[in-house]
Amino acid sequence: MAKVLPSITKVAGFRCAGVHAGLKKDNALDMTLITSNRDCVAAAVFTKNTFKGAPVIVGQQHLAASKSQMRAVIVNTKSANAATGDAGIQDAREMARLTANLLECQPQQVMPMSTGVIGERLKMDKIAQGIEQAHGGLTSSAWQDAATGIMTTDTHPKLASTKVMTINGEYTIAGIVKGSGMIAPNMATMLSIIVTDAKLRPDVAQHMLQTAADLSYNNIVVDGDTSPNDTVLLLANGASDIAIEKQTDMEQFQQALTQLSAHLARSVVRDGEGVTKFITLDVRHAASTQAARQIAHTIATSPLVKTAFFGNDANWGRIISAAGRSNAGFDPNKCALWITPGKEIFEEDRGLLLFEDGTNAPYEEAAASNIMAEDEIYVTLDCKQGSSDATIWTCDLSHDYVSINADYRT
Amino acid sequence: MAKVLPSITKVAGFRCAGVHAGLKKDNALDMTLITSNRDCVAAAVFTKNTFKGAPVIVGQQHLAASKSQMRAVIVNTKSANAATGDAGIQDAREMARLTANLLECQPQQVMPMSTGVIGERLKMDKIAQGIEQAHGGLTSSAWQDAATGIMTTDTHPKLASTKVMTINGEYTIAGIVKGSGMIAPNMATMLSIIVTDAKLRPDVAQHMLQTAADLSYNNIVVDGDTSPNDTVLLLANGASDIAIEKQTDMEQFQQALTQLSAHLARSVVRDGEGVTKFITLDVRHAASTQAARQIAHTIATSPLVKTAFFGNDANWGRIISAAGRSNAGFDPNKCALWITPGKEIFEEDRGLLLFEDGTNAPYEEAAASNIMAEDEIYVTLDCKQGSSDATIWTCDLSHDYVSINADYRT
Repeated sequence: MAKVLPSITKVAGFRCAGVHAGLKKDNALDMTLITSNRDCVAAAVFTKNTFKGAPVIVGQQHLAASKSQMRAVIVNTKSANAATGDAGIQDAREMARLTANLLECQPQQVMPMSTGVIGERLKMDKIAQGIEQAHGGLTSSAWQDAATGIMTTDTHPKLASTKVMTINGEYTIAGIVKGSGMIAPNMATMLSIIVTDAKLRPDVAQHMLQTAADLSYNNIVVDGDTSPNDTVLLLANGASDIAIEKQTDMEQFQQALTQLSAHLARSVVRDGEGVTKFITLDVRHAASTQAARQIAHTIATSPLVKTAFFGNDANWGRIISAAGRSNAGFDPNKCALWITPGKEIFEEDRGLLLFEDGTNAPYEEAAASNIMAEDEIYVTLDCKQGSSDATIWTCDLSHDYVSINADYRT
Repeated sequence: MAKVLPSITKVAGFRCAGVHAGLKKDNALDMTLITSNRDCVAAAVFTKNTFKGAPVIVGQQHLAASKSQMRAVIVNTKSANAATGDAGIQDAREMARLTANLLECQPQQVMPMSTGVIGERLKMDKIAQGIEQAHGGLTSSAWQDAATGIMTTDTHPKLASTKVMTINGEYTIAGIVKGSGMIAPNMATMLSIIVTDAKLRPDVAQHMLQTAADLSYNNIVVDGDTSPNDTVLLLANGASDIAIEKQTDMEQFQQALTQLSAHLARSVVRDGEGVTKFITLDVRHAASTQAARQIAHTIATSPLVKTAFFGNDANWGRIISAAGRSNAGFDPNKCALWITPGKEIFEEDRGLLLFEDGTNAPYEEAAASNIMAEDEIYVTLDCKQGSSDATIWTCDLSHDYVSINADYRT
């Protein structure tokens, strides 16, 4: 297991900057530029929402044109450039063009990203100024600023890195992420940028990113909503001269990428809107992977389950009810439900048994309440039906979530 | 259009009672008995949750045995008799048997229903005493008590009736309903009982009830959760001597039954947990009925949409985003979204246009906020794709919803 650190020192060949372009108030950083000193292989996973922001539409075109020649990503916060029509598409292209001019590359070699309020045009004069400023401030170490420059309602920057040893030497994978709700006030949300100095083929990069995303970003649920701008981008510049080609190297890279992505994804849940509890929901022995994910997703999005967690209530009736309405063939008469504190378990100890095979277990309510009062709770639902598992990281639904999201857009 | 009244005077051949059996505190009514002086045709729609309470399992058996000889329904509140194993099944059978003894009919001619906390055994001594007391108090007019005796977290009893004129005379359809969340603290929830003195064939009764339920109870969303005990029961005793046989008579009955059911279903949303706003969500011109319902359901269950309504925020970005993630082929670049106060519209006036064909409309934010501040809001989303429509009645997500559902079970 590679060790994932909650910081980034340096990734060979990459420079970055986070600056205040004047889009946000109070001198908050609101633009981020990340660039490589050589062409990168690029891969990306985009929102499945049919309502796509202009940067996603333009980004998909640039990715198709420059899968092996990507050079940079330019991000602004405050406005998502979504639901802005043809003018918004032109603005996203202009962001890439202005960046490419300074970096002396083609506009298609730059990925534009935006996050923030839906339905507002970008303030292109400030964006242009921010791009110049970011370009002037590029360093190999400003990752904290880069992670800060993409934040919206996030309460703190989220970044991580891991170093992988191979027989040919060492490479690094590092990433930043933002997102805190799924959509805050009227925002178009999750963005993550991952960079590595390993050398990858484009098709391998895309496959590995998709696999990692399915085991990380696609397994987190704050409120079940998805945004028009969600994007995860991977840039691999090969500056370490370590090529990921052999099967064992690919497996090692996949494992490290997945661990890094999972770390970043979990950090989004922990910083979710109004979150007071981090919940690991582990659905075991379902009839199929699809069934396991559907059961887990239905439980994780149930307002009744989420409010019970907020209230420290070991309300197994709501969990079993949610599983029962998931259309995944769940059988309440053949299952078992446990809770335990923490974010990990050992196979032998799933904690306190609450419910088994149609009826409640003879547990002490006080013991259950004590577990529910913890900040981190691990829930296991054994479906006793097959051999497929799914894990989802989720959170509770609190008064603060309602307050944050009921506030009028400002 | 038949006129639906929020009260019930009398339905020929039916008697009822609502009593305090000692299950709830403070002398609150907690049991209801409804019976007919002759055999009834019975039809029912049950929860689709695979987690079913004992009364649903026993009720399905009794319905199968007595489709044309049903005589009564006996209901208790406080405990749902769900997740109670074989002992719970025996308790549900015993409720029917005790009632049948007093009514001098077979146990299979009685439908048992329970609503309340999941996972508790029924207090059968109190239930037995409540059945005797209800039997002793049967009258043709105690419908208000009957509607009160099935309440859990409902803040008031919900009942309605309609009279239908035919060339052969008049018949009545009347109903009671309870439900207020979907599941309150740990409760197994929606129950509705509809009685009529019209004469129906069993297959026709089942078909018409299913059709009415699809256009009423299946179109309400408070929080998207469904309970193990949800049941809608129709009893038709034919005491009016008006047989519903001809096509025109069936259409008339269907229309009246649907209107009554819609009235009762809307009353559940209005009395929903923490509800401050009643929202009619009208999805038009979708590619199929399935697509229209899926789009409407995704919008109505989105926590971000629901909190925006609570906050009087005309946040079209969240509504379009929810439609976009509904997997129903929704195209944000070809659609229109309006809001207007009230619970009905006239085809010509859909109100204030917020969004059309990919971008926001040039509306005044103050005008939108004024509409959002109303108690009743009508939202129309025209998908411009086909000819299928769906209407869902829903509500906002408030601080009170979180408080009610976070409170520890008591």
